[in-house]
Amino acid sequence: MSSELKFGDFSVSIFGESHGAGIGAVINGLPSGIPIDMDKILDFMARRAPKKDGMSTRRSEKDTPEILSGFYNGKTTGTPLAAVIRNTDTRSQDYGNISVSARPGHADYTGFMRYNGANDPRGGGHFSGRLTAPLVFAGAVCGQILETVGIDCCAHILAIDGVYDDRFDELEISPELMKKIKSAEMPLINEGRSADMKAHVLAAAEKLDSVGGIIECAVTGLPAGIGSPMFDGIENRISQAVFGIPAVKAIAFGAGFGFAEMRGSQANDAMYMDGGKVRTKTNNNAGICGGISDGMPVIFTVAVKPTPSIAKPQKTVDFIKGEDTELVIKGRHDACIVPRAVPVIEAAANIAVLSLMLDNGHLINSHDNDGEQ
Amino acid sequence: MSSELKFGDFSVSIFGESHGAGIGAVINGLPSGIPIDMDKILDFMARRAPKKDGMSTRRSEKDTPEILSGFYNGKTTGTPLAAVIRNTDTRSQDYGNISVSARPGHADYTGFMRYNGANDPRGGGHFSGRLTAPLVFAGAVCGQILETVGIDCCAHILAIDGVYDDRFDELEISPELMKKIKSAEMPLINEGRSADMKAHVLAAAEKLDSVGGIIECAVTGLPAGIGSPMFDGIENRISQAVFGIPAVKAIAFGAGFGFAEMRGSQANDAMYMDGGKVRTKTNNNAGICGGISDGMPVIFTVAVKPTPSIAKPQKTVDFIKGEDTELVIKGRHDACIVPRAVPVIEAAANIAVLSLMLDNGHLINSHDNDGEQ
Amino acid sequence: MSSELKFGDFSVSIFGESHGAGIGAVINGLPSGIPIDMDKILDFMARRAPKKDGMSTRRSEKDTPEILSGFYNGKTTGTPLAAVIRNTDTRSQDYGNISVSARPGHADYTGFMRYNGANDPRGGGHFSGRLTAPLVFAGAVCGQILETVGIDCCAHILAIDGVYDDRFDELEISPELMKKIKSAEMPLINEGRSADMKAHVLAAAEKLDSVGGIIECAVTGLPAGIGSPMFDGIENRISQAVFGIPAVKAIAFGAGFGFAEMRGSQANDAMYMDGGKVRTKTNNNAGICGGISDGMPVIFTVAVKPTPSIAKPQKTVDFIKGEDTELVIKGRHDACIVPRAVPVIEAAANIAVLSLMLDNGHLINSHDNDGEQ
Amino acid sequence: MSSELKFGDFSVSIFGESHGAGIGAVINGLPSGIPIDMDKILDFMARRAPKKDGMSTRRSEKDTPEILSGFYNGKTTGTPLAAVIRNTDTRSQDYGNISVSARPGHADYTGFMRYNGANDPRGGGHFSGRLTAPLVFAGAVCGQILETVGIDCCAHILAIDGVYDDRFDELEISPELMKKIKSAEMPLINEGRSADMKAHVLAAAEKLDSVGGIIECAVTGLPAGIGSPMFDGIENRISQAVFGIPAVKAIAFGAGFGFAEMRGSQANDAMYMDGGKVRTKTNNNAGICGGISDGMPVIFTVAVKPTPSIAKPQKTVDFIKGEDTELVIKGRHDACIVPRAVPVIEAAANIAVLSLMLDNGHLINSHDNDGEQ
Repeated sequence: MSSELKFGDFSVSIFGESHGAGIGAVINGLPSGIPIDMDKILDFMARRAPKKDGMSTRRSEKDTPEILSGFYNGKTTGTPLAAVIRNTDTRSQDYGNISVSARPGHADYTGFMRYNGANDPRGGGHFSGRLTAPLVFAGAVCGQILETVGIDCCAHILAIDGVYDDRFDELEISPELMKKIKSAEMPLINEGRSADMKAHVLAAAEKLDSVGGIIECAVTGLPAGIGSPMFDGIENRISQAVFGIPAVKAIAFGAGFGFAEMRGSQANDAMYMDGGKVRTKTNNNAGICGGISDGMPVIFTVAVKPTPSIAKPQKTVDFIKGEDTELVIKGRHDACIVPRAVPVIEAAANIAVLSLMLDNGHLINSHDNDGEQ
Repeated sequence: MSSELKFGDFSVSIFGESHGAGIGAVINGLPSGIPIDMDKILDFMARRAPKKDGMSTRRSEKDTPEILSGFYNGKTTGTPLAAVIRNTDTRSQDYGNISVSARPGHADYTGFMRYNGANDPRGGGHFSGRLTAPLVFAGAVCGQILETVGIDCCAHILAIDGVYDDRFDELEISPELMKKIKSAEMPLINEGRSADMKAHVLAAAEKLDSVGGIIECAVTGLPAGIGSPMFDGIENRISQAVFGIPAVKAIAFGAGFGFAEMRGSQANDAMYMDGGKVRTKTNNNAGICGGISDGMPVIFTVAVKPTPSIAKPQKTVDFIKGEDTELVIKGRHDACIVPRAVPVIEAAANIAVLSLMLDNGHLINSHDNDGEQ
Repeated sequence: MSSELKFGDFSVSIFGESHGAGIGAVINGLPSGIPIDMDKILDFMARRAPKKDGMSTRRSEKDTPEILSGFYNGKTTGTPLAAVIRNTDTRSQDYGNISVSARPGHADYTGFMRYNGANDPRGGGHFSGRLTAPLVFAGAVCGQILETVGIDCCAHILAIDGVYDDRFDELEISPELMKKIKSAEMPLINEGRSADMKAHVLAAAEKLDSVGGIIECAVTGLPAGIGSPMFDGIENRISQAVFGIPAVKAIAFGAGFGFAEMRGSQANDAMYMDGGKVRTKTNNNAGICGGISDGMPVIFTVAVKPTPSIAKPQKTVDFIKGEDTELVIKGRHDACIVPRAVPVIEAAANIAVLSLMLDNGHLINSHDNDGEQ
Repeated sequence: MSSELKFGDFSVSIFGESHGAGIGAVINGLPSGIPIDMDKILDFMARRAPKKDGMSTRRSEKDTPEILSGFYNGKTTGTPLAAVIRNTDTRSQDYGNISVSARPGHADYTGFMRYNGANDPRGGGHFSGRLTAPLVFAGAVCGQILETVGIDCCAHILAIDGVYDDRFDELEISPELMKKIKSAEMPLINEGRSADMKAHVLAAAEKLDSVGGIIECAVTGLPAGIGSPMFDGIENRISQAVFGIPAVKAIAFGAGFGFAEMRGSQANDAMYMDGGKVRTKTNNNAGICGGISDGMPVIFTVAVKPTPSIAKPQKTVDFIKGEDTELVIKGRHDACIVPRAVPVIEAAANIAVLSLMLDNGHLINSHDNDGEQ
């Protein structure tokens, strides 16, 4: 019943509504004494922010988080880290009609039923994609902590409206490639696909429509032995986190649905020793067996549905009056949220992976425990 | 770090190893006073049990659960319901070599790394598919409780090795169809595909190989308004549960990865009033918006990888000696676990859905609360 | 590892440090559609605020919480309710020496060891009594929700420095008495004891010392059957909450330690029917058997240790240098925190009791569920 | 709503009813590779078993736990450790009348209300003191794990019916004293008080009555820095665990209620350096400040109410018929459960303390992690 990811002692709690006073996150159970570079946090968050490229919403606000607690002298204190992002640019009148007419593909009707009509409906309220801003903040913090032990998460657009990027090499992903993707305007392995993707988005936008896509995410540097059997495995935690992101409707690890047409002899990843380390010759299992890492990259893909807010007239219901109606959504909306969702997926992965590292006793307390009294 | 699904106050905890004394489940937070028909529980569990059709393992044991607590006078008591299944037919010698040579696609190496070599490796130990027996027991109990409020879960084989069954009608699934599937020898919508599927399995088995597949599962009767935003939505909970099942590597709700090639105008499910009730004309969103049910069927698919235990020689490592080796797996193994995984998926869905109903205040205490002092 | 009370789906998460930017609370799992009167919340919080009577700290700040989310049109939305209280009057220089010299009775040394020196030490940081402000906020919200179903919590000073107030009548506590106590300057049953108590506090303050006391708290209106066996009983939850309040070192339900000198025939509360309702003739068990309510008032006492911050010179250690030292605490501190702790205990009880009501399926969703579509 | 202690990733789940098939425990999140001596476990459990000294119930059964999982080659595996204790000697007919007449001081009425009459009432069902057997089992396992890092818990009878034992020296408790207490027939510091205590018990028994008492428990060897602020402190966790034990109604840490009559200058524990280690000159705070250990012994007392099952006629209600009645309890019951409760308190402390050590990253994985691949 909570908007909180709680994994053992570690938790990320998200609060806020699209048009309320503010949104934010509280992170409990962080290791103490880890330096956090706030500029890098803002850089990470900027990747989620609306762009001025015609692809995303024209709503612009400086989503700068204010850290209220848990951060002292440039380091995590180990006590709850709370951050708030103010809502400043909220044009509520645009949403006048959603309180009665359900926007298809949105949570207007389901949220109304869940809360007996008491939830804040403005701009989607607590269901708004805007709530991913504090999630990205939390994921950015977790990512910097993972970096200190050599773990890196990186996501890219795998597909938009049928236009595909290359896939990650399942056996090895270089830090350089990850860095390049994270700083690119369009997070792609093959930047050459950018123009084609944008063209598809603009074509849909012109028709008052929107498009969906696929995001691929890789986690490198995870040592073997991380995760737990059954319900606290890597797949369970990552999927629990990413399904918290609006518009995500599917997740696949490694060969994913492709396993359905494989033989065991293909699907099994043959193992070999490489300089004293166990490695596999393929990575269909996405670096995970029995929920636990084997040291190979953890790779997964998620499906992102097309932005449900489209300007085209739509058939729907007025669920207060209980009658059919037609809806034309005004307001500002992305014709494609896939590029902006990329850092959100990365953030969710960071949170899930940090939780697993902490579970297994890594990174607890300062990693700079030099034994001073 | 636990083999426990804990959703709010409701939890299902699974314990045991393949070749230990026994395996079992403890269910906490069940509503009290709900009649449970033990014969139906055994019927449900029989669907998971090894068959004598050449498709599945020849290991045979009567996996009859003994209920130790939480069940009195034919009803749930509301206190913890514990059940144990004895391990009786354990031929440990078959597994002599797995303590050193990692079986590819299994958790031998990852489990060793996770537990520093202290875990029970016999037959996969706690990672064995045998642990799905208590999960099915728990799911069968939850299913009977859901039945009392008209909720039904049903899964079928959607594909084996590229041979496809029909898909569920996304708008309506009849109780009769569900009943038929549950009592069929092969859980299919189109029974005519059975022979072809079996032929594929036997062909693989002959080549000492195995095949994977896809399972589709539907939940009907869920009222609108069930689930919670962000991390306690229907997708989060179902995925957290099903990734607890060995061999599941992907999950997709509704149109799933198909969303990637849809326009918003197609993907959005148009809404209309039907006899005072809100319904949608399509069901791409699988009856879920913002993590919460809209009253339409909840439908998802999962990918099941081919049985990793194959008789073909495989390249692997002896991770104790730290050297390459070749492995030939003896023992008894299914060439295709998809049919047996069907009730396991159903069980996981039952558990997740009951947890959501309880969260929202449904089914708490006896549903026969007639106000006696 | 978290500063969060999590009871099933309901949680109260507290964040902040004494001298950071702000402190606050996030409440997850509240029922939706419950009207909250913000003036009453402020009244409740004012009872905890520093007084101008010489008994408490001279630090003055308007601890007005800003609600950021979860509250719309004067009602709870059911989504996370977050509130922030700014820190405005922080004279950090007063605490210059605590970064090295541990204040006895405080968490300076233990916090340092817990967080390897990375926690914010200013003013006690996250360990400060100031963190009880958001706890009181959360408890005040919970209290208004409990009121809607006729449950009331009320605490009073039972003792300060050996001066005792009367005890609650264990069988019946009138709403009038509770109201009187809550609005009194000193929360007492027998207001006549106020002068004597104050005299003791001032006498201690003159000697640069402080005094402790006992607080008694009653919960009325709880129906029979609330709570759960073993670890989720009324005693478990209330004690888990109240030990979150700095300076609380003991808790006793009903006859408490007095049971040690009773016979079973005295200790057992004889039962009788009273107008169709079960009641008991005594209430040694504090309205709780097996962790579950029997309908009688739930009554408990807690011991509050003397304010550890005293102006008297104290022997302590400089735990950075690892040597003995003497400490004179400057700054502003209460000579007796018992009066200000009274609403904090009440708040903790409100939170624990609401969690139990929600567990048992009461108060879930709007209590005004009039069946509108 | 659960009979489970869940602290982060570590949990102890208890199941069973007094007269059902069996009772047991499942422990999740134990470190792997820790040797457990089963004979010592049985010795620990024997301390809780009914004695043949006239003080306790004449019911005798061999409460030997069968370990079903999580234990391999004499060591913990790290996966769930489950154990079952069969109920063999259950004379249900003795309890024929409790299904209608509430036994005062028991959970007959409250349990009925909690579960709408569906719970198993025989012998108190899930509320029976017999459920402490699996709790002791779990605590004994935890205790052996704590021993490997030099932590020891020991409880003794502090008082029975007004006859007092000595208290622990708050500054230092020798391993020899702890060992002596644990192996004594009556767990006392001053064995000379045994005869007097027994005389009081027998005197009460002769009058068909029972007596209560106080148990004191100490934890030594806990390093400084263990525990967390606010709701996951040492006091919170220990109290949450011990209130799970039937008959416990109060808990006090260190000076406890005595703080109410102390001045701050007395209550504060002066600190000093002793051979490079911080120590305190008194230990009123029970080795805990801000919920976190300071390295001194953690000492607490709990009040145990007199056995509510007494043979004396008692006034009560038949809550089915809704009328007053008189009850004479037959069956076998202890006139004093304090001696048998001593190892149960110790067990609860072991569980709580191990949870805190695991939280802080101690004892995770094998403590014999010699770096083998």
